[in-house]
Amino acid sequence: MRISHVRVTPIAFRDPPLLNAAGIHEPYALRSIIEVETDCGRTGLGESFGDAAALNAFTALAPHLLGHDPFDINGLATLCARVVASLAPPDAGAELAPGSDPARRLANCIAAFEVPLLDLQAQYAGVPLYDLLGGAVRKAVPFSAYLFFKYAHHIDDDELPDAWGEALTPGQIVAQAKRMIDLYGFGSIKLKAGTLPPDIEVAAIEELARAFPGLPLRIDPNGAWSMETAITCAERLGPLIEYYEDPVDGLDAMAELHRRTGLPLATNMVVTCFDHLRRSVALDAVQIVLGDHHYWGGLKASQTLGAMCQTFGLGLSMHSNSHLGISLMAMSHLAAATPNLTYACDTHYPWVEEADEVVAAGKVPITGGAVHLGDTPGLGVTLDRDRLARGHDTFNRIAIRTRDDLGQMRRYDPAFSAAKPRY
Amino acid sequence: MRISHVRVTPIAFRDPPLLNAAGIHEPYALRSIIEVETDCGRTGLGESFGDAAALNAFTALAPHLLGHDPFDINGLATLCARVVASLAPPDAGAELAPGSDPARRLANCIAAFEVPLLDLQAQYAGVPLYDLLGGAVRKAVPFSAYLFFKYAHHIDDDELPDAWGEALTPGQIVAQAKRMIDLYGFGSIKLKAGTLPPDIEVAAIEELARAFPGLPLRIDPNGAWSMETAITCAERLGPLIEYYEDPVDGLDAMAELHRRTGLPLATNMVVTCFDHLRRSVALDAVQIVLGDHHYWGGLKASQTLGAMCQTFGLGLSMHSNSHLGISLMAMSHLAAATPNLTYACDTHYPWVEEADEVVAAGKVPITGGAVHLGDTPGLGVTLDRDRLARGHDTFNRIAIRTRDDLGQMRRYDPAFSAAKPRY
Repeated sequence: MRISHVRVTPIAFRDPPLLNAAGIHEPYALRSIIEVETDCGRTGLGESFGDAAALNAFTALAPHLLGHDPFDINGLATLCARVVASLAPPDAGAELAPGSDPARRLANCIAAFEVPLLDLQAQYAGVPLYDLLGGAVRKAVPFSAYLFFKYAHHIDDDELPDAWGEALTPGQIVAQAKRMIDLYGFGSIKLKAGTLPPDIEVAAIEELARAFPGLPLRIDPNGAWSMETAITCAERLGPLIEYYEDPVDGLDAMAELHRRTGLPLATNMVVTCFDHLRRSVALDAVQIVLGDHHYWGGLKASQTLGAMCQTFGLGLSMHSNSHLGISLMAMSHLAAATPNLTYACDTHYPWVEEADEVVAAGKVPITGGAVHLGDTPGLGVTLDRDRLARGHDTFNRIAIRTRDDLGQMRRYDPAFSAAKPRY
Repeated sequence: MRISHVRVTPIAFRDPPLLNAAGIHEPYALRSIIEVETDCGRTGLGESFGDAAALNAFTALAPHLLGHDPFDINGLATLCARVVASLAPPDAGAELAPGSDPARRLANCIAAFEVPLLDLQAQYAGVPLYDLLGGAVRKAVPFSAYLFFKYAHHIDDDELPDAWGEALTPGQIVAQAKRMIDLYGFGSIKLKAGTLPPDIEVAAIEELARAFPGLPLRIDPNGAWSMETAITCAERLGPLIEYYEDPVDGLDAMAELHRRTGLPLATNMVVTCFDHLRRSVALDAVQIVLGDHHYWGGLKASQTLGAMCQTFGLGLSMHSNSHLGISLMAMSHLAAATPNLTYACDTHYPWVEEADEVVAAGKVPITGGAVHLGDTPGLGVTLDRDRLARGHDTFNRIAIRTRDDLGQMRRYDPAFSAAKPRY
């Protein structure tokens, strides 16, 4: 089996005005949809970042994969290293979103193509992808309800409001949670924070705890809180949350916060590669790592992360960026086959409009809070070419080429600053 | 594909009187040959320890595998954990050889069956086993010439002398190296030490360096040297060796020796599981880890070890016990697909008599110092049932049921002690 064709299609899909420490989501999120075809007529699918730098790397790599054996993942990594090294050096400090850090470009590139290659391998072998990752320890993969403070609609007049409405108070967050749990059955809740004053965000967790007794709760201020704020909030949050995700910024600050509060700290910001993990272990900075195959170098590297977490006594959870069904399936196969991934995974998937999905039959169902994996060989999804074409048309129609939550927020508030700590 | 039959066959094969810190090899080495058959007519092969405790665990596990899906390695690990937990607790302090430590029994058990399951997976997928491990970065897998001080023949009169002759002086070790390199083309050399007085062993390394200029050299005293001896010997060895393997015993002593000499220390004794690795990293005790899939929990766990070594800046090499061709092939597929396994692997294979091999067509060729992997689906070897039957007959004919190098040595020297440090 040899690769005969590689297609990288940039797409855009609607994204609600979700608030976070960096600003606010723009009206559209970008993704790359990757198709890898073989001389035996199979197609492997992948989905990754869609910003200009990522697209540039993926399209630069594509021609080098012609003739490559899809089973040769080590060779893919070597190819990626060569191609990424030949690209123009990234702008300094250009991190836009977790995982889009230019320092992660090689890992992003390997991951973007490893998934379609594994999809091909599993199709070739006639087994579901999780079987190539060690077999499913769970075929129902639990995800969490990912709540955001948000505006009712984007500042742009031509964008219709989404169905979720405004969420700027604890009561509105509880209503958002109720709607999301009614729709998807989630059994745990994550609140994106670091945006409104901490007192409101902590009050939202307290109201969620009252409204959903027994459901695990998490809060993620994305490093926007000062040490003092994080310690003050920890008194109210401590008894209510399963973990405290990135309340402060930086490995040293996380280590200090853990020493001073004893709370389990989680991160997808200060540990985003194996070198960070090494340093975190030395400092005892975090207790739970949120993996994400898109920037940890793929599904196999993410399982290695899982094994390292096991060795070093760390918990393992999973991070999400805005994504569609191909990524959701890759995340689900990974989670299914990673025994110590015992926390429900994050996902932005409920925020995606049904019409914007690119896989055949539309959005992948989440029921009982879980994606349910079957026995279909490979990743288990195929593309709907009309849907893909619509996503690509949207990409071509809009001006967004890199994610810019800060710039978008300054359209609402020209004085807005994302400098940390914000509170 | 489901498992329909599992056969665990204990075998014995001739082993020369090789000296080591624990004593001397007995006239026969024991192994288990594992056959896992499926309802679709495939057979996966494995080879592991053959001592009574290992055999007991393997045979206890076998019936639980009936109906199991060979792709379900996570399920295998769960089964092994349950079965091993149900076995009688091991005798305290019963470590007989690296990897036979009862604390490694679960990892041994997983590894013993993971290899035949991966062999089945690869046959089912129609690809060589290395393809399921990420693809071959090298299809010629280099091994090292593994030299031993030895007697000309066993103490037992009924055992014929082997073809290698006596090696009790530096000159005889050089002759042994010449013969082994003539036969197999090895490009690096390892000397088992910790048995004769250190001055002789260091002199052997010096003579090897003169006789084989440019060839990487290693020495392995198996923890038999005192700190003072190891430091004294380091002055002569330092400029000649690529690494210094287990000169002293224990993680703390290794850490101290590294601080005091700066030499790269390798081990297969103080880091034999992931928990040891965690502690070694904290102490900077060793710089190179010798993996061994038989006691690290299998081929995939060994690749995880490789990734951890990469993360923590450690080198990766490979350990060997006395073994036959199935283990050699599993070691070779693993090494082929593990990019940072850049040291030549250890192997006892040259010490095996041609007639004692159990795989079809006899001993797997080592040419140019390497095992050369082809494109045959799976592990790439099959059993010769007549050869297997002969190995099993030998097992039934002899009295050895656990490896006992110490007891064997006391037949030569009733006062012999393996207490450490020996020198």
